[in-house]
Amino acid sequence: MSAAAIEDVYPSRLTSEPQFNARVDPVVYGGGPGSWLSPEDLQHFEEHGYLFVEHLIGTTEVRELADELRSLSRDEHLRNQEEMITEPGSGAVRSIFRVHRLSPVFERLARNVRLLDVARQVLGSEVYIHQSRANFKPGFMGKEFYWHSDFETWHVEDGMPRMRAISVSVALTENYSFNGPLMVMPGSHKTYVSCVGQTPEDHYKQSLKKQEYGVPDDENLRRLAEGGGIVAPTGPAGSAVFFDCNTIHGSNSNITPHPRTNVFFVYNSVDNALQEPFCGLEPRPEHIATRESFAPLTPVERG
Amino acid sequence: MSAAAIEDVYPSRLTSEPQFNARVDPVVYGGGPGSWLSPEDLQHFEEHGYLFVEHLIGTTEVRELADELRSLSRDEHLRNQEEMITEPGSGAVRSIFRVHRLSPVFERLARNVRLLDVARQVLGSEVYIHQSRANFKPGFMGKEFYWHSDFETWHVEDGMPRMRAISVSVALTENYSFNGPLMVMPGSHKTYVSCVGQTPEDHYKQSLKKQEYGVPDDENLRRLAEGGGIVAPTGPAGSAVFFDCNTIHGSNSNITPHPRTNVFFVYNSVDNALQEPFCGLEPRPEHIATRESFAPLTPVERG
Repeated sequence: MSAAAIEDVYPSRLTSEPQFNARVDPVVYGGGPGSWLSPEDLQHFEEHGYLFVEHLIGTTEVRELADELRSLSRDEHLRNQEEMITEPGSGAVRSIFRVHRLSPVFERLARNVRLLDVARQVLGSEVYIHQSRANFKPGFMGKEFYWHSDFETWHVEDGMPRMRAISVSVALTENYSFNGPLMVMPGSHKTYVSCVGQTPEDHYKQSLKKQEYGVPDDENLRRLAEGGGIVAPTGPAGSAVFFDCNTIHGSNSNITPHPRTNVFFVYNSVDNALQEPFCGLEPRPEHIATRESFAPLTPVERG
Repeated sequence: MSAAAIEDVYPSRLTSEPQFNARVDPVVYGGGPGSWLSPEDLQHFEEHGYLFVEHLIGTTEVRELADELRSLSRDEHLRNQEEMITEPGSGAVRSIFRVHRLSPVFERLARNVRLLDVARQVLGSEVYIHQSRANFKPGFMGKEFYWHSDFETWHVEDGMPRMRAISVSVALTENYSFNGPLMVMPGSHKTYVSCVGQTPEDHYKQSLKKQEYGVPDDENLRRLAEGGGIVAPTGPAGSAVFFDCNTIHGSNSNITPHPRTNVFFVYNSVDNALQEPFCGLEPRPEHIATRESFAPLTPVERG
């Protein structure tokens, strides 16, 4: 990377007042490998910062992934690993990190050519996985995730230099409007809302359970929601939402009997490899933000 | 009332196992005054236990009600009254009880001929107000209300003998799918789920903030949701959901910037006046369950 790459073009958690700044990076970089998305899809992603694809993966594969996830969440050995995040209070499994390294079934999904092609088309380069996780929102007592831009945290706490990463959330259960589906604020990816407050040490241990820093203020959230509204895509298991690293998103609680489970991959451009964290603290651990290797991911077709 | 009326046909909180029993009362009693609902509406209510009406009241009246509610929630004198329920933690106003007695504007709404006609048509008699309240689910931090049948509580804690009451929730802000709208389980009104656990003294002081007794168990909630699904009617301010006293309902949290405010009236049949509470404890206070008068409500037309 050139020396210019480590300039902090997206400062946050440095001032006592939140700032509302324009994004300086492209959304769709173009020119990369991959051809799965149509020009209209790319245009939609550029404009709104997300793309919903129904039936991205088939019923058989969904079942296989759900079974694998059940095994992982019952694995007594994993219970004691830092990859496993539990709900405060109940102790129920909330997330399993680095799921594509813990399980060959999930590794295959991460390298599914459709997912990979979307990432490569949008980011205009080869990509690697910055973070992966399975998220469980159990029935009856699923907790909310408050609004945030992932990029703000990845930049400040992980040292991701620029906005050149894309996330995909693949639903392994049906997403109804009422079981706490992912909500996005379309268009919010074009603005960078810097947050107030200094990052505490080992912030990740708390923030994965309840986010308190890196959270946009009410006034700017209202402004973004007025700009482009709120969308909560719903659809059967196997559907997916792709969204830009800077798209503001969150989800409400889930008191229905229907659990909401999804798997989440973050593809980062190999030309956007992590630097030192911009907050000046130690990097977060490997299972939350990979630094071991920024080598391109290669696609697999299902055998 | 005859002596037979005080027989406890809906026992609850008496056994250590929940019971799943058929309703013994009609849903639509028929033969009462009022003609606003069509036979199809009544049929829908009978079958599903709820009825959604868009634009029940007009924009001007919505504005007037919202303004009045703002005044009430800022009223310093009211702040110290038991009618005012605040969020645990933030102290924000969550509910104002007995709102039709605190404000002539809300009294007029309670006596609106359309609301009253629905209640009288369904219950087949004259009606009075058993309880009224305004509910605030603020933006960003609106808390969930867990699933419950109102009748279970009104029966056990207030001594309401039979299922012959109907509620209406009138929206004073737009109900989106994502700002914690009221969810109902259609068809659940035909089953009485008795709950486990004994009622503690002064239970209402806690239950209005967080319900722990009178909550159906997971297995029966799942069974009811499998039977008739879950519906969350959405629509503009001024829309209303009528629902049977025994319809299971609840709502998720609200992290969106859009507050959800509604006003809620419970019409009880004058032939179903309160007895002693079936739990053997003291009755709940007047602002939660009226005992002063069971006199019929008379309609007003808007002047």
